[in-house]
Amino acid sequence: MKDRNEALALDRADPLAALRDQFALPSGTIYLDGNSLGVAPKAAAARAQQVIAAEWGDDLIRSWNSAGWFALPRRLGNKLAPLIGAADNEVVVTDTISVNLFKVLSAGLRMQQMRDPQRRVIVSERSNFPTDLYIAQGLIEQLDRGYELRLIDDPADLPAALGDDVAISMLTHVNYRTGRMHDMQTLTRQIHACGALALWDLAHSAGAVPVDLNGVGADFAVGCTYKYLNGGPGSPAFVWVPQRHQRAFSQPLSGWWGHSAPFAMSPDYRPADDIGRFLCGTQPIVSMALVDCGLDVFLQTDMQAIRRKSLALTDLFIELVETRCAGLGLELATPRGHAQRGSHVSFAHPHGYAVMQALIARHVIGDYREPHVLRFGFTPLYLRYADVWDAVEMLRDVLANEQWRAPEFAARGAVT
Amino acid sequence: MKDRNEALALDRADPLAALRDQFALPSGTIYLDGNSLGVAPKAAAARAQQVIAAEWGDDLIRSWNSAGWFALPRRLGNKLAPLIGAADNEVVVTDTISVNLFKVLSAGLRMQQMRDPQRRVIVSERSNFPTDLYIAQGLIEQLDRGYELRLIDDPADLPAALGDDVAISMLTHVNYRTGRMHDMQTLTRQIHACGALALWDLAHSAGAVPVDLNGVGADFAVGCTYKYLNGGPGSPAFVWVPQRHQRAFSQPLSGWWGHSAPFAMSPDYRPADDIGRFLCGTQPIVSMALVDCGLDVFLQTDMQAIRRKSLALTDLFIELVETRCAGLGLELATPRGHAQRGSHVSFAHPHGYAVMQALIARHVIGDYREPHVLRFGFTPLYLRYADVWDAVEMLRDVLANEQWRAPEFAARGAVT
Repeated sequence: MKDRNEALALDRADPLAALRDQFALPSGTIYLDGNSLGVAPKAAAARAQQVIAAEWGDDLIRSWNSAGWFALPRRLGNKLAPLIGAADNEVVVTDTISVNLFKVLSAGLRMQQMRDPQRRVIVSERSNFPTDLYIAQGLIEQLDRGYELRLIDDPADLPAALGDDVAISMLTHVNYRTGRMHDMQTLTRQIHACGALALWDLAHSAGAVPVDLNGVGADFAVGCTYKYLNGGPGSPAFVWVPQRHQRAFSQPLSGWWGHSAPFAMSPDYRPADDIGRFLCGTQPIVSMALVDCGLDVFLQTDMQAIRRKSLALTDLFIELVETRCAGLGLELATPRGHAQRGSHVSFAHPHGYAVMQALIARHVIGDYREPHVLRFGFTPLYLRYADVWDAVEMLRDVLANEQWRAPEFAARGAVT
Repeated sequence: MKDRNEALALDRADPLAALRDQFALPSGTIYLDGNSLGVAPKAAAARAQQVIAAEWGDDLIRSWNSAGWFALPRRLGNKLAPLIGAADNEVVVTDTISVNLFKVLSAGLRMQQMRDPQRRVIVSERSNFPTDLYIAQGLIEQLDRGYELRLIDDPADLPAALGDDVAISMLTHVNYRTGRMHDMQTLTRQIHACGALALWDLAHSAGAVPVDLNGVGADFAVGCTYKYLNGGPGSPAFVWVPQRHQRAFSQPLSGWWGHSAPFAMSPDYRPADDIGRFLCGTQPIVSMALVDCGLDVFLQTDMQAIRRKSLALTDLFIELVETRCAGLGLELATPRGHAQRGSHVSFAHPHGYAVMQALIARHVIGDYREPHVLRFGFTPLYLRYADVWDAVEMLRDVLANEQWRAPEFAARGAVT
């Protein structure tokens, strides 16, 4: 692309263009960080007022039933399910990814212990998002029965790591740092062929790329709703367990919301005989209710259309950076192949932190991840091709004029 | 009390009366269920708008730092601390009671395993809130090392249950069903004398009765913010660990928010060297932010003043029910002694469920707990003595005229 007018023409022809109007985008900003925190749907403010003023304020305790609060984890789970290839009653929205990982890792190891107790290895990647590794470490230490976390450094090493000692693999579909996407179908087949269970973390996939959990026959998945699903800061996560596993698996966070009859107040835990057994405690209703607003936008399109635009946006971004910012020190860290790319693009730069700060000062919001990585997320629901053009122009200016060398961009505070 | 005018006189003399104006009370309703879900502070609606429109909407990802989102669990913990006799940096607001119980029970058993591995018993009460028991059962099953849950049927049985095989006691300070309050100081002394750790669940205590965790030398506590603290439906819970234990204890839900350097993105978990190690995953910010509004009201009074009014309200309620509803089938289930009473009062009635439904239809909101128990919660921040009078009159009418026999009150749906 040689000219901003070409970008404008793409926007005019974009079948998703109208959806942008449903988001409360800050004016004067190009927001390329929807992979970290999605933009607020305009409906969220009114929904919060309804929950606070009418449901909490006026109806108070009755809203647990009358406003459907108690059913929210399941109702939102069913609404989210089609985006990830899940069926009804296979997903609940609840807790955090970390807590949900603990549940499903525990459940998976427990099932393997019954089936083949020699399987004591959790396979993952050293480059996985840290909390996944931390949770596995915490669980292994707690079980204290010789479990082991085996980390591979390259996806190509996975087959060699899949020995007959492997209980479960825990992979993140799209890498948080590089945007590299795994071939979920092939890897799940390899994992199953070695007798292990396949757990997928969809943090950077749900709402970003088509996922077909039942189609690939995965065993567990977790993910979050505050990135591409636009559910709000820290909105509750989700956990998927296929029908075929729901009664076979149990998990140790056996709180009252997972009981088959929570209000019978029995002193003995008896798990719900469905996905409900992956619930634990009382959920944060205001944050949870806003997840609805994010999901509503997805009902107006489909993941194939989103994927087409996502690839067009990331293709364009890579092309423009590599042509218009050539020789300015950026190196693509995201795979070029569509099959290996999620919905964000990362470039390495030796002064990546300062470059990103300078760019943010120019109102182009991406983020930075150690070491050296500039991340740019592309959410097709609210981004325009012209935004991509403008963001690259700004990036070129920051680099070509070395604006990032200004002292205010060097100090490294808390980074999110 | 013989006359409603006496109640009105008490209201005029009430030093807390002005605080009622800070709550969005539904008109025409007497709300006696603040022990289950506290009333919305008026400030909550505006605070939610600020978080959604300004912090999430305009500032987006930057708000993790600029709006203090990342610091919320600790900041709110410090704000809550004085209400429960905790010091700065001993409390974090996070997750749910169930999840926090799993953390502290795990940590306590782990410490005892180092110190005296023969201690394999968790002592609790059969009448404890079920999720406490379920979580202990889930953890025991997970550890699979001969741990045992020993349940007592009467508080008087505690000394006998405290053998040298006990690792930790898990007691709820105020019983959810009866409102009976334990003597935390004496029991903690007994628990320590047997070499066990003392974990207290403050679900029905925090903001309801004075608690002095450091004064009694307790070891752990958990509690929730959506009852007497008025934080909103399902608002995040809290966990307290005293300074002296913070570095000695570890817990298995080792998510990235508990890491000493979460944004270093290291593949190895290294716990924060303070209360931060009891954090796990990313928290629901909108729900969490509203906890602030509930806590702000407490800054304008103190727990002693709240306790004085709470006892006056519950004394009056018991007196009026026993005089004005005499012979109508109600039996007090809450201790009469102040030292054994929390801030709610329970009466048993053979048709308790229907009676409560009939009362709710008359806009007096209490709740029902199996079996036969009518619960009435008294939150001194927003309840008036006249409300107590009026509620008892309504209860008398429902019972004396057998309004509860109407068929619409018999069907038992989902109960919260």
